[in-house]
Amino acid sequence: MSVKELINMLGHQAKIASMSLRNVSTEQKNQALLAIAENIEHNRNNILNANQLDIENAQEKNLSDALIDRLLLNDERIDSIIQSLNQIALLEDPIGEITDLKYRPSGIQVGKMRVPLGVLGIIYESRPNVTIDASALCLKSSNAVVLRGGSESINSNQALYKCIQDGIKSVDLDVNCVQIVETIDRDAVKFLVSNENVDAIIPRGGKGLVSAISESSRVPVIKHLDGICHTYIDEEADTKKAVDVAFNGKTRRYGVCNATETLLVHQNAPKSILEDLVKLFTDKGVELRGCQKTLEIFSGMIAANEDDWSTEYLAPILSIKIVENIDQAIEHIENYGSGHTESIVTENISIGRYFLNLVDSSSVMINASTGFADGGEYGLGAEIGISTDKFHVRGPVGLEGLTSQKYIVIGDGHIRG
Amino acid sequence: MSVKELINMLGHQAKIASMSLRNVSTEQKNQALLAIAENIEHNRNNILNANQLDIENAQEKNLSDALIDRLLLNDERIDSIIQSLNQIALLEDPIGEITDLKYRPSGIQVGKMRVPLGVLGIIYESRPNVTIDASALCLKSSNAVVLRGGSESINSNQALYKCIQDGIKSVDLDVNCVQIVETIDRDAVKFLVSNENVDAIIPRGGKGLVSAISESSRVPVIKHLDGICHTYIDEEADTKKAVDVAFNGKTRRYGVCNATETLLVHQNAPKSILEDLVKLFTDKGVELRGCQKTLEIFSGMIAANEDDWSTEYLAPILSIKIVENIDQAIEHIENYGSGHTESIVTENISIGRYFLNLVDSSSVMINASTGFADGGEYGLGAEIGISTDKFHVRGPVGLEGLTSQKYIVIGDGHIRG
Repeated sequence: MSVKELINMLGHQAKIASMSLRNVSTEQKNQALLAIAENIEHNRNNILNANQLDIENAQEKNLSDALIDRLLLNDERIDSIIQSLNQIALLEDPIGEITDLKYRPSGIQVGKMRVPLGVLGIIYESRPNVTIDASALCLKSSNAVVLRGGSESINSNQALYKCIQDGIKSVDLDVNCVQIVETIDRDAVKFLVSNENVDAIIPRGGKGLVSAISESSRVPVIKHLDGICHTYIDEEADTKKAVDVAFNGKTRRYGVCNATETLLVHQNAPKSILEDLVKLFTDKGVELRGCQKTLEIFSGMIAANEDDWSTEYLAPILSIKIVENIDQAIEHIENYGSGHTESIVTENISIGRYFLNLVDSSSVMINASTGFADGGEYGLGAEIGISTDKFHVRGPVGLEGLTSQKYIVIGDGHIRG
Repeated sequence: MSVKELINMLGHQAKIASMSLRNVSTEQKNQALLAIAENIEHNRNNILNANQLDIENAQEKNLSDALIDRLLLNDERIDSIIQSLNQIALLEDPIGEITDLKYRPSGIQVGKMRVPLGVLGIIYESRPNVTIDASALCLKSSNAVVLRGGSESINSNQALYKCIQDGIKSVDLDVNCVQIVETIDRDAVKFLVSNENVDAIIPRGGKGLVSAISESSRVPVIKHLDGICHTYIDEEADTKKAVDVAFNGKTRRYGVCNATETLLVHQNAPKSILEDLVKLFTDKGVELRGCQKTLEIFSGMIAANEDDWSTEYLAPILSIKIVENIDQAIEHIENYGSGHTESIVTENISIGRYFLNLVDSSSVMINASTGFADGGEYGLGAEIGISTDKFHVRGPVGLEGLTSQKYIVIGDGHIRG
């Protein structure tokens, strides 16, 4: 079978499975999730052994330590995978919810019913836990899924997939609700993102992967590109809140998409804020790169160049810009930001309201660390990714982002005049 | 200026206008709509004269009567355009609505705020009223719009656009909130659907236009393709309701996308239903095309061929298929339907529930005519189109379909641990 035929077969099987998922009970889906969790517990050693193979292969190929760390499974990480399955089983089922069912003047009742998207294609890199998390979220939202993991994690993924298959079978669901693409042929991705049975593609991984898939996909993509997040300290900021929020936004973790990469400060903000922050960041080992005005205050600081404003450092580096007013801050965010997360620190309610309305990002915050931009913190229960697009879903994507709403109409023999 | 440069300029201007629209009050938007309505009233004769030019050009080019009818403006149609503007001014403003604002365990408040998509591109054919309707819906939802109408209606569109421009200027909004592409160069569409500043494209017109744009667009498309709608008469259908719903679904209007094109009948449904319907349809002049089983009952009927099941007749023709059970009906809809609107006639609540869950269409109905699938009937107030896609928005698209939701977070100096 050619790669194209393989993907067509998987797509077709997924479509059939997705039809069977339209009428599956919440109970049955939850039982599948719990069965998968049990299977992983019982096959813990097999999974660890398979992962060991992947790690050895990666070491032989001299892959980077960072990649090998993402690839690694250990008891703690398996515990966390099992815990995630149990949590997703506890989440409310979004499917079938009927809202806004109202009588219209004609006598019909019109409402909306939440339904699955259908068939999802998820393309990811080396983290094996995505195999389980993505499958669980798709199952719970009654979507069939075709998974395409990184070639480095193929043994781990196959061991985990065995647990998924057995779990699905044990509750009499169509085993093709979750399928993995087993070939390492790169053409598989090309055919998956143009398959007529696939309703949406979710790429999970680095910017290179996500851009490449978005460029080539003929299917809607739920995607996350950069996280160039800003914290803006207004002239009416509270000193302690400003220092706390900015410091936490940058230093909580460096390698995450919700980390603050640029600090914007109103020229009339209390001087002590920037003084305190510069000292804290320097003590913490964060490299600071300032605009011209910042350098006039902190003469020893490295000068930021044009590229700094549009760089997602993912590292202990922060660019700092002093602005004349809030409009300049918003303009900077509009020009250089990635539409991910921006936070303002201010005590002024009108300024806060203005920032909320004007800033066009997936998360806009007042007096809170950008580090809060996360499905768990937002109460989604679990997250399949963060969308920096505006179409369909925006920000952290939980179960609801994997669904759609159709109209339902209930009459009693009603005809339209 | 090349066509590409022109479209880039329009896109850039639209982007700047869309930023200014983020903080415009509902009152200001409504005043703009009412001012446009007044301008149209005052320029009624200019508009009719411009339209007369378009009609004459169309007649010279021997364009079809159907197209000339779509192109035509008269006093009644201008009244209806003015009425539509006044109605849209009365609609609730979707923008800025904050929902689900809840405290999280961390102490932050998290909610969602409804925001515009940004810049929309609307590509349509000959109906000049779309110029006003689309502009009004975009304005009310705080989206900037670039309109590309058909070349046949260019004089009418320019006359109407003058009214829009003056209305927008009179309330001090950025005049580039609404722009029209004035060149008739077909490349304009190509550049518009790949412009980096355009957030979504809405094609309005025949299937050829919509398919071509969907194929070539690099921007999300809100689209409507076929309306191959089904009415399914269950074995437990009430005779009168079945006859009323099926007859109305087909004959209310033939040329509309929500007309029933195929009637599915359970083999054990009361015999009199199909007998009565065949008589009614025949008297009405509707050509019937039956499956093999239907022909066994009505021997004189034309036989339906395979193509009939996937044809949107938009004409007084109806295909009829007798099915063994509801699953066969659902399978037929899945294979041949277009995901637009399907209705079941049944008195059995479990069967009705099953149909609602299993049928994957933008509108699914019980005991109601497919003719109800319409933004007005659903209470949307106004409709920019019907989406047969599942991504972002489904079914009749009103103001809400032109918006997105971003997350907002309000803290008091909160940091994440």
